[in-house]
Amino acid sequence: MPPKEPRTEDEFIEQLTDVWKAENAAILWGPGDDCALLKPSTVGYQRVLKTDAVVQNVHFQPTDAPEDVGHKALGRVLSDFGAMGATPESALITIGIPTRVDVEFMRRCYRGMARLASRWKVGLAGGELVRSRILWLSIAGTGIVRRGQAVSRKGAKPGDALCVTGRLGGAFPERHLKFEPRLPEGQWLASRNYATSMMDLSDGLGKDLPRLARASGVSFSVDPSWLPRHRGVTPEQAVNDGEDYELLFTVRAGQIDVVRRLWPFETPITVIGQMLHPSEENRTGGVSFSGFDHIFNKRKRRSS
Amino acid sequence: MPPKEPRTEDEFIEQLTDVWKAENAAILWGPGDDCALLKPSTVGYQRVLKTDAVVQNVHFQPTDAPEDVGHKALGRVLSDFGAMGATPESALITIGIPTRVDVEFMRRCYRGMARLASRWKVGLAGGELVRSRILWLSIAGTGIVRRGQAVSRKGAKPGDALCVTGRLGGAFPERHLKFEPRLPEGQWLASRNYATSMMDLSDGLGKDLPRLARASGVSFSVDPSWLPRHRGVTPEQAVNDGEDYELLFTVRAGQIDVVRRLWPFETPITVIGQMLHPSEENRTGGVSFSGFDHIFNKRKRRSS
Repeated sequence: MPPKEPRTEDEFIEQLTDVWKAENAAILWGPGDDCALLKPSTVGYQRVLKTDAVVQNVHFQPTDAPEDVGHKALGRVLSDFGAMGATPESALITIGIPTRVDVEFMRRCYRGMARLASRWKVGLAGGELVRSRILWLSIAGTGIVRRGQAVSRKGAKPGDALCVTGRLGGAFPERHLKFEPRLPEGQWLASRNYATSMMDLSDGLGKDLPRLARASGVSFSVDPSWLPRHRGVTPEQAVNDGEDYELLFTVRAGQIDVVRRLWPFETPITVIGQMLHPSEENRTGGVSFSGFDHIFNKRKRRSS
Repeated sequence: MPPKEPRTEDEFIEQLTDVWKAENAAILWGPGDDCALLKPSTVGYQRVLKTDAVVQNVHFQPTDAPEDVGHKALGRVLSDFGAMGATPESALITIGIPTRVDVEFMRRCYRGMARLASRWKVGLAGGELVRSRILWLSIAGTGIVRRGQAVSRKGAKPGDALCVTGRLGGAFPERHLKFEPRLPEGQWLASRNYATSMMDLSDGLGKDLPRLARASGVSFSVDPSWLPRHRGVTPEQAVNDGEDYELLFTVRAGQIDVVRRLWPFETPITVIGQMLHPSEENRTGGVSFSGFDHIFNKRKRRSS
């Protein structure tokens, strides 16, 4: 029996949050109070925080399946946790919702989030509904990582091998909604101290690799023809399409064979280049590294 | 010398985050990585989390001073921390930003947030910029509270005195942008175990008091003519205008005189009623308790 139409904001919130079944022992008080209350993190662990958002007509279209929209909204946050080697705990969901509420769209969107949350034991810590002319979801997540094991963007050294998981490019029109956050892969690389630096690819290798290199104070060399690509994707697209949600990471040259041999996942890993001394020029095999600039972009993204 | 116009998203983010001077020792890694990294909370403390948002043409107007918009956006989160008796630590700022970026508006908006953050030592943990047809800010905050001292909405008992800080009503068109989050007041009430339940008044007493009563499983009696009101505000408006950002809390009847005598703040506190056995009807002195429903509202809010 479908739930009855909500008459008030509080009823609507109850109907949405009821869908969320995943629990996490870190959450002492969840939705329904001014704030969520979290246990102190386990001894020897630190907390990670991440916030991200998806906006209608930018990150998804009104015609996309609502479950996929929810999956993407939460998946973007989990992807960043993967890139730190962290384990997710909780999520707070803030929704900007038009005056004409599409109740069924929102319920299905929550179902998509809740399904992904169940897979990774992400408890619902709380959230907020606000009115907005267009629909958007902003998700803040907390996670934990063992002290000293979080992998930043800053640790790459000249000579390190540069690697990616999965395949790149052609995320539109579909794959950007259905990606799997690389949590176990990132946790594995972090817990064994294999990754000297790591980040997730959300704006495209062409935008994100220069960020990682800048943070680490090194240069890079990539041959785009080596890039693992999805079917029908050119090297230029693999560099600049964006929304891959794969891991970009560096490994000391002497360890890359060990990583490849012990890698226990079906997700492929590929060495796509290496980090260079900062006095050297970046080498990109003649492909323009532009990626996607959300704010000052000249390039038109294929989805919007 | 004003900063030069940003050419890329990363430059723009740097210009905004440079404004933020407040630091908090809990933040190990702030903006610039996939996630923020936080120290474990001090022994004997728990973490609180809160997310909230403001949307253009709903929570603020394009003609409002940008500094005030920033103040309100962060202030809403701090107000909830006050209502738990917590101390803020960090904030993550997610901004939905139109393609035609008003760079100067955003800088001034950040200045308003940064000023409030400095007053309460809220460190910047990170954030995200996303494109959006309308401007909105979604802020996630973390804070700490001593174990066992967080005050929920659930603890009110029949016979408890019902109190508010400050004055109610008439928050529009100005006061809703300039309120002071009641952090010291909430922390004082929580640390001395005076408040049996507490929440902040954001949707109006008429909406929020029934929430507190429902969470606690009690009824309430309020005489709206007792309400401390701003000049020119009717009892009906004091009940239903919303956006007061004052504390609503309950105190055991036997303790209310002590609380009044020891209260060390300039902010007034007023006993406005008492909690009743759940078998009794709520008493509202003939004033309709509707408050503001963000989603299914029939009432038109004066600001929008």
